[in-house]
Amino acid sequence: MTNPTQMATEVAEQPAVLRSTLDALMPLREQVGALLRERRRVLLVARGSSDNAALYGRYLLEAHAGVPAAMAAPSVATHYEAELDLSDTVVVSVSQSGETTEIVQTQAWAARCGAATVAVTNGADSALAREAGLALVTTAGRELAVPATKTYLAQVAAMAVIGTSVGPVDASLDAVLLGLPDVVAGLLAARDGVDAAVEQLAGADQTIVTGRGLLMGTALETALKLEETCLQPVRGYSYADLRHGPISVVDEDVTAIVVAAPDGPLSGAMTELAADLRGRGATVVGVGGDPSFAGGCDLWLPGGDVTEPLAPLATIVPLQLVVEQLARRLGLDPDAPRGLSKVTRTDAT
Amino acid sequence: MTNPTQMATEVAEQPAVLRSTLDALMPLREQVGALLRERRRVLLVARGSSDNAALYGRYLLEAHAGVPAAMAAPSVATHYEAELDLSDTVVVSVSQSGETTEIVQTQAWAARCGAATVAVTNGADSALAREAGLALVTTAGRELAVPATKTYLAQVAAMAVIGTSVGPVDASLDAVLLGLPDVVAGLLAARDGVDAAVEQLAGADQTIVTGRGLLMGTALETALKLEETCLQPVRGYSYADLRHGPISVVDEDVTAIVVAAPDGPLSGAMTELAADLRGRGATVVGVGGDPSFAGGCDLWLPGGDVTEPLAPLATIVPLQLVVEQLARRLGLDPDAPRGLSKVTRTDAT
Repeated sequence: MTNPTQMATEVAEQPAVLRSTLDALMPLREQVGALLRERRRVLLVARGSSDNAALYGRYLLEAHAGVPAAMAAPSVATHYEAELDLSDTVVVSVSQSGETTEIVQTQAWAARCGAATVAVTNGADSALAREAGLALVTTAGRELAVPATKTYLAQVAAMAVIGTSVGPVDASLDAVLLGLPDVVAGLLAARDGVDAAVEQLAGADQTIVTGRGLLMGTALETALKLEETCLQPVRGYSYADLRHGPISVVDEDVTAIVVAAPDGPLSGAMTELAADLRGRGATVVGVGGDPSFAGGCDLWLPGGDVTEPLAPLATIVPLQLVVEQLARRLGLDPDAPRGLSKVTRTDAT
Repeated sequence: MTNPTQMATEVAEQPAVLRSTLDALMPLREQVGALLRERRRVLLVARGSSDNAALYGRYLLEAHAGVPAAMAAPSVATHYEAELDLSDTVVVSVSQSGETTEIVQTQAWAARCGAATVAVTNGADSALAREAGLALVTTAGRELAVPATKTYLAQVAAMAVIGTSVGPVDASLDAVLLGLPDVVAGLLAARDGVDAAVEQLAGADQTIVTGRGLLMGTALETALKLEETCLQPVRGYSYADLRHGPISVVDEDVTAIVVAAPDGPLSGAMTELAADLRGRGATVVGVGGDPSFAGGCDLWLPGGDVTEPLAPLATIVPLQLVVEQLARRLGLDPDAPRGLSKVTRTDAT
């Protein structure tokens, strides 16, 4: 047996990363909650994988915590230099390295606009952490593979901490949260359905990935990873955007990865979507969802059976396994995809 | 000569549609401005083409008018039924028909959350218009072709009215706005570069479309139309998302449509992006931009030379001409693309 890739090693570290990150951040929950109650709304600033983690935070804040939340457009800060009154806003900036110039600059702009600033980063000594009003530093350790896996999951955990910081503690939800390291360990050990999904995707002509609501960020992160790490042209859609039009181009050439939660108000719609996509000839690879969703897919991977508000902490894991194995299957090096570097530097000039 | 398609006829009506829509909406600008000054922030609700028009409104409000603005996630209303305090918010709901269930329901939810509601719709008697606090009814007339063209441009005009409603009247910008029907007529008459762009896209292996800031909605609308009307797998990216990772998969198989404004803080970056994409082997079809941008593209279409805050009212027009002609070139009927119907009904159950 050959040595595992760095990416595989880092994916395998996630139960420990999740445990240590929750240990580090749960004690800060009260402080975060106080900020949110005082300021009333949240603006999330991020790019790439961090943006996909932040999108989960946005839905969790609105749907679970009742706090209006939105995604920022960094160019409004960095290029248009808009003067906005953000005195009623907590700006949460998310960056794995904490050194992405655009995100650091947008956080500084937010502070000038009167916002309270919270940084979510794996870079304890980074500019983003140093300059934030409050830094939520994840403890994923150094990540050497270019595709973000353990740092992404740690960011998702930070979003769960933020999204459960308002209002009284929900002991049963906290129990699920603290049990997630074991759930992730179980998914990693089982690798259920991974081989079959990899074979399907290796031969796929076109791939789309879709999810909705709290799981939309998981779907978009999967699309981004397939595109960057496996160099496949992949389109990621929200459920609603797909339904609104592009579903008309789905046919037997399409492999559709559909990401779902085991409960919540969207689970029925995701089962119907899987059936619709199959009716158009697509091969549907389902991840997560409830038993009727699982039964309605051509191929299926368990997502950890975690209640929807926390499902993104588990459901990404089988998809990481698929991406890593698919890259190798395609003769690519998952640790160093073509053309990518670890700290992205979107121009901010 | 054969009869023009319905889509071509409706594209050609746009100078008149733009003039009558501006005539109808400019007198409401003071009322909109009063709402925005009182409520301080805007949340935009839309799907599909309407979402692309709304995205322009969002950037214009933040970058030009200094009003914090964000895109809503309709499922937060329709499925999660979140209880948010929106008493400081103007919710602008955008729907061509005004009958899309999800958008009508989200507007009703916003009103229950305390928001002031503004509808932008071409449906004067629609549920969305009837139930809004203030209705901005565009006057595009009946649109028979399935791809939204004149109704989309009318929505973009409504966004320009909203985005220029705060603060003192800018007479020189208003002069540009009122001159746009003539600019659009000029673009339609000239069809500069359309034939060459169509030939390039007809043979393209992969197509991507990118833009940034105020022009990002134009880029995403172009991607959506190519996908829906020409049945091509197309990916639409914001400039920054493309730069952040997916640019690594750009090679000589890619045709990249790059949409730019002739001025503004992003124009230099768009010229550099075009050069970068060409350096990776892509064929770049540029639309709009300044002379140095135009000179740096493989193929180029004029975008009307309208200052960035209003450029989206003109720059979409040559792209509509390309989509209509490309559909015919590919043997498709642009008036009735496969699988689409006129009033989209994203489930809202």
